[in-house]
Amino acid sequence: MILTVTLNTALDITYRVRELRPYASHRVTSVTERPGGKGLNVARVLAALGHEVTVTGFVGGPAGRAVQDQLTATPGVLDALLPVSGSTRRTIAVVEEVEETATSLTPDTTQLNEPGPQITPAEWSAFQDVYEGLLPSVSVVALCGSLPPGVPVGAYAHLIRTARAAGVPVLLDTSGEPLRRGVAARPDLVKPNAAELTELTGSHEPSQATRDVRRRGARAVVASLGPDGLLAVTPEGRWRATPPTRVRGNPTGAGDSAVAGLLSGLIDQLPWPERLARATALSAATVMSPVAGEFDRPTYEKLLSRVTVTTEATAA
Amino acid sequence: MILTVTLNTALDITYRVRELRPYASHRVTSVTERPGGKGLNVARVLAALGHEVTVTGFVGGPAGRAVQDQLTATPGVLDALLPVSGSTRRTIAVVEEVEETATSLTPDTTQLNEPGPQITPAEWSAFQDVYEGLLPSVSVVALCGSLPPGVPVGAYAHLIRTARAAGVPVLLDTSGEPLRRGVAARPDLVKPNAAELTELTGSHEPSQATRDVRRRGARAVVASLGPDGLLAVTPEGRWRATPPTRVRGNPTGAGDSAVAGLLSGLIDQLPWPERLARATALSAATVMSPVAGEFDRPTYEKLLSRVTVTTEATAA
Repeated sequence: MILTVTLNTALDITYRVRELRPYASHRVTSVTERPGGKGLNVARVLAALGHEVTVTGFVGGPAGRAVQDQLTATPGVLDALLPVSGSTRRTIAVVEEVEETATSLTPDTTQLNEPGPQITPAEWSAFQDVYEGLLPSVSVVALCGSLPPGVPVGAYAHLIRTARAAGVPVLLDTSGEPLRRGVAARPDLVKPNAAELTELTGSHEPSQATRDVRRRGARAVVASLGPDGLLAVTPEGRWRATPPTRVRGNPTGAGDSAVAGLLSGLIDQLPWPERLARATALSAATVMSPVAGEFDRPTYEKLLSRVTVTTEATAA
Repeated sequence: MILTVTLNTALDITYRVRELRPYASHRVTSVTERPGGKGLNVARVLAALGHEVTVTGFVGGPAGRAVQDQLTATPGVLDALLPVSGSTRRTIAVVEEVEETATSLTPDTTQLNEPGPQITPAEWSAFQDVYEGLLPSVSVVALCGSLPPGVPVGAYAHLIRTARAAGVPVLLDTSGEPLRRGVAARPDLVKPNAAELTELTGSHEPSQATRDVRRRGARAVVASLGPDGLLAVTPEGRWRATPPTRVRGNPTGAGDSAVAGLLSGLIDQLPWPERLARATALSAATVMSPVAGEFDRPTYEKLLSRVTVTTEATAA
């Protein structure tokens, strides 16, 4: 069993409009909703790959009910979310109806993100009990995304120490100060993107920055570098994984699919190069999918054998 | 008891953002939600004036539950909304955080409106039964706002005929083809704004257009003409009602407050000039309120005695 933690779950809403004009009134032509927040996205990809996954974190209010209703309908995903008094945040992606002939690289999405519910000290304390109770039955835990208001900035550091004490390997995917503090708590794996890597280390040079993240405490680092693929720095070696062609499409959820690939490869006890190939193919298949954040299975399977994984030279 | 009908209820959500920029990602700094749809707005104003009011129409989904939760907490409002399988629409007003010194006439709101739930023929039929069941216990009915998908365009015409058959006076406040067909069914009162009046009659001249609306079937017409106040054309006479000063502020809900004033004056059996003064003062107090769609009671009471109501000359 894999456990993903999403403290700031979301109801991701997509609105289609003809054209977004500030100060005008717009008729929304279509509305879609799905559970969001990084850990829930990761769980959905893992379930689609055939893994059993438990999701935990906070949910509340009408948006929280909508998230749980959809999760319940997803085979392979077990709901262990903790109800809170506040309301799960909504994120609204306003997408313009572009011409069929336009390239999908045209920016067409305006994003409005609610801040998330205020978590009380009692709710945060109750969550830690739920989390500790789940650990004995899981093989790996992924801590994903931003913290809602009220949760202490050292939350992930604390959850990492608890997982390590229980002997459960832990992956961390967050940003800013929660990432900085989390890395110092010695997680088994962190997956920063280029911006998070630079924010954490001050370095724009991924090779140097990933080494720095290991020095700060992470056992292994897999940096997702967009079109440049994944850069992995681990005790077992250093690798670069790149998709066969430059991938075009919507990058929403590509990082979450990479996390799912890494967890899936870990559970299946694959060697690092195969884990990285799985993560890279899933990530590229997500970018190429017509539905943001979903991955296209035939594309994934086609890409899997065509990902290039090369050993990176160890710097002095 | 007053009955208001809102077939396309809404959950009105207001987001505050620093500045809305297309294709950017925005952190929403505050979120407020309240029941919306014209008939629910009218009911809230009537309840604040001390009237008992029953609301009916369709609600569904998480947004519908949020609407009903808030209505239940509003003293004086009785919930007779009919649950449907679809989801009540949300409307999102994205408001920029303007400087305190800026005039409130600066356009600062971008509106995103969902279309509303698909109503099935069985749900529309069930509503007509609910409506007929409510009529014997009400003194006046107001039919307000747009029709959700699936409701026949002649819906208001049908509901007007049912009310007339039950001997209940009926006010209609809608637009487009539902207004055109509704007027032909001989409602007691219609309250078009300037745009609706022009769309219905083809005339940009309110005096001529209001007479035309009466010829088309309405017993009385009260046109809300924004800063020019109200123009009433009734079997008892013709009046113009204007607020004492040019009112500045947010016009959201001003028309709904005017409808509430007209209903309130009818229930209290006021002569037309006093009904019009009440409607004009409520409307102006809504524009001047710092909260969109609410009215400020001291402002209303102060304005009430200062509204000018003049008899309009009858044209040849």
